[in-house]
Amino acid sequence: MLTFHHAPWSRSSSILWLLEELGVDYRIEIVDVRGEDGAPESYRAIHPHKKVPAIDHDNTIVTERAAISIYLGDVFAEAGLAPAIGDPRRATYLKWLVYADSVFDPAVAARVHGLVYGSNDYSFGTFDDMVNHVDRHLSQNDYVCGDDFTAADIQLGAAIGYTMDMMKVLPERPAFRAYLARTGARPAAKAAAAKDQEMAMRIPFFQKQFAER
Amino acid sequence: MLTFHHAPWSRSSSILWLLEELGVDYRIEIVDVRGEDGAPESYRAIHPHKKVPAIDHDNTIVTERAAISIYLGDVFAEAGLAPAIGDPRRATYLKWLVYADSVFDPAVAARVHGLVYGSNDYSFGTFDDMVNHVDRHLSQNDYVCGDDFTAADIQLGAAIGYTMDMMKVLPERPAFRAYLARTGARPAAKAAAAKDQEMAMRIPFFQKQFAER
Repeated sequence: MLTFHHAPWSRSSSILWLLEELGVDYRIEIVDVRGEDGAPESYRAIHPHKKVPAIDHDNTIVTERAAISIYLGDVFAEAGLAPAIGDPRRATYLKWLVYADSVFDPAVAARVHGLVYGSNDYSFGTFDDMVNHVDRHLSQNDYVCGDDFTAADIQLGAAIGYTMDMMKVLPERPAFRAYLARTGARPAAKAAAAKDQEMAMRIPFFQKQFAER
Repeated sequence: MLTFHHAPWSRSSSILWLLEELGVDYRIEIVDVRGEDGAPESYRAIHPHKKVPAIDHDNTIVTERAAISIYLGDVFAEAGLAPAIGDPRRATYLKWLVYADSVFDPAVAARVHGLVYGSNDYSFGTFDDMVNHVDRHLSQNDYVCGDDFTAADIQLGAAIGYTMDMMKVLPERPAFRAYLARTGARPAAKAAAAKDQEMAMRIPFFQKQFAER
């Protein structure tokens, strides 16, 4: 039994995409994180910071997107989204999953908030180092692990799409655009996007935003 | 063949501890990250942000501490530091490894730099939520995964020790102190600390610091 605690159009949307790629049965619990004090206090039993995503797999709760991705990719190995232990691509796979959460995401947040800092000030290093590293890797590889799409591409693809097209923080680069086209064309990516939009439109926060346009 | 790119008394010291726990052969390449512009530019071929740690295992480079820990823990499974895929503790193990890099570390850095922000401003959430979550978990469990020490305890133990005792940023809590005593008493923890100190004392940056005392 797989339950997915999700807020539409949020950081958890990348896990919605992952679940669609895995092709497994799951049920969605929508978490309203956009209230004045965030999610209700009762939700802290699921996620200690009252954030999304969280999954409950047979009464085991997993939080942190990289951990969820590694966990589900390995448990549902038959979906072919995770290089197995011993596969030479495993290291690259793990590195990029962790990187998306511990470098890409905090570096973008720092940039949005106008932080000026040196590489050693923060564990995640500079925004420019991050952008150049991702650009170089995707200029040389179709996917994170080379020729084959993996769960790491879901997290990186979602991160690039959101920060370049929605937030307009990540600079436009040809390698980013080509990567988004490649990853976004996947049926599961489109199915997840459609489901997410449908869920978002049932949430007062977004209904209000659209009504005000 | 295992090469460990390391800067003594830095974030990579936790990987030194991990290598000692694994009991495998490895060689150390010391990286001088404390120069004016950080590590030499040539090191960017190993680590894209010129940071530590990085490991080279049979010509496969792994960066990001959580990724290195997951990778090595699984590859050297006989050391018993990683719950296997299918083990019910695997989810907790992965979550805490990712959490140390993507929540604990950035939240501490934000606090050090005096950032005031809301839970949704940054991906990693608030410093107080982090402290309370770690405190609660370690008040209820001897180790990250309950009764058994795993590679996740190395990353969390090193993080708590460094930020509470060296940086004095993490507040003193009985559960933190007891956890440090439990994890720090391990022979591998002591061996790593001794090796690290010996290496640090050969580095001009630290020699100068001590000479000025």
